[in-house]
Amino acid sequence: MSQHQIQNQTEIQTQTSIRVRPAAASDMDGMWTIFDAVIEAGESYPFAPGTSRAACADYWFNPRSTSFVAVDAGQRVLGMYKLVPNQMDLGAHVANASYMVSPAARGAGVGTLIGRHSLDEARRQGYLAMQFNYVISSNQAAVALWKKLGFEIVGTLPKSFLHARLGYVDAYVMYQLLIEPAAWPAPACR
Amino acid sequence: MSQHQIQNQTEIQTQTSIRVRPAAASDMDGMWTIFDAVIEAGESYPFAPGTSRAACADYWFNPRSTSFVAVDAGQRVLGMYKLVPNQMDLGAHVANASYMVSPAARGAGVGTLIGRHSLDEARRQGYLAMQFNYVISSNQAAVALWKKLGFEIVGTLPKSFLHARLGYVDAYVMYQLLIEPAAWPAPACR
Repeated sequence: MSQHQIQNQTEIQTQTSIRVRPAAASDMDGMWTIFDAVIEAGESYPFAPGTSRAACADYWFNPRSTSFVAVDAGQRVLGMYKLVPNQMDLGAHVANASYMVSPAARGAGVGTLIGRHSLDEARRQGYLAMQFNYVISSNQAAVALWKKLGFEIVGTLPKSFLHARLGYVDAYVMYQLLIEPAAWPAPACR
Repeated sequence: MSQHQIQNQTEIQTQTSIRVRPAAASDMDGMWTIFDAVIEAGESYPFAPGTSRAACADYWFNPRSTSFVAVDAGQRVLGMYKLVPNQMDLGAHVANASYMVSPAARGAGVGTLIGRHSLDEARRQGYLAMQFNYVISSNQAAVALWKKLGFEIVGTLPKSFLHARLGYVDAYVMYQLLIEPAAWPAPACR
């Protein structure tokens, strides 16, 4: 068996042992470690480096959001996402989602796994479309992943993000319909 | 003097007697009357018809926002706007703004007046760009006004707004730089 085959087997083993489930308060230590590392880099989220654990907790656990974690067999958190209506009331049929993957777990397919899970979960919750408001253009891995999962860049926001290394860079608005409009439920009469 | 000339003189008189100043708690009755009428129509904001006065107060008066009113000589509120950072921290150099004009005051130039005021005020507060996240595509008067004031449609969000009469319609993301990027302040070093 070649080294390449062994490596592939290991990756498959890793991926099949990863589960996605609703986030619990007991996941907070693992989620904070990931949040802090992602935010410290200053390359993908608008939170300033040094953002507090309390702000992290409020971001992932609040009444408007439903949060999920990807965990390994030992219940170690490898990544997380949340769903929230992108607008209230008359715009609440469009989901917004946010994702973070542990820098230590990159390349293991966690992003793809939670991305797919979030699309299924959004449909299950009755959302009709999904929108990302602020995908940083220099975050090429994220842009490529979202395109792979069916999102399109529908807008470009010039110099709207202050990147830690690159200075002001563009951000993208990405969007996809979750259900063909012909199959959307008729709006209720007023 | 023709009827047309008389009407023009009246409009000019009306416009010159309108002032824009910071909103005060004493403006709340007038602001609520406008908010309630705009929201009841269900054509331009995601708030559901029937949204409470408390939600209106929280929208216009909160620690993140600065709100302004356009008032006539009798201090009657004809319209209002607010500025708020569109994103926190690393995206806080981009302003977001929201505007409402009394249905009774339409055509008197209030929208243009508060639109121009908001751009000046955003520059005064140090913002470098301004973004609208959710301009309803069927609201042609608003789209035309924002284009007149320098905004461009930078994105289209398919069927993202449930319009009271038209069903699901597109919304636009509109954007403009407030200062040429060459004149932007250099980001602080980390």
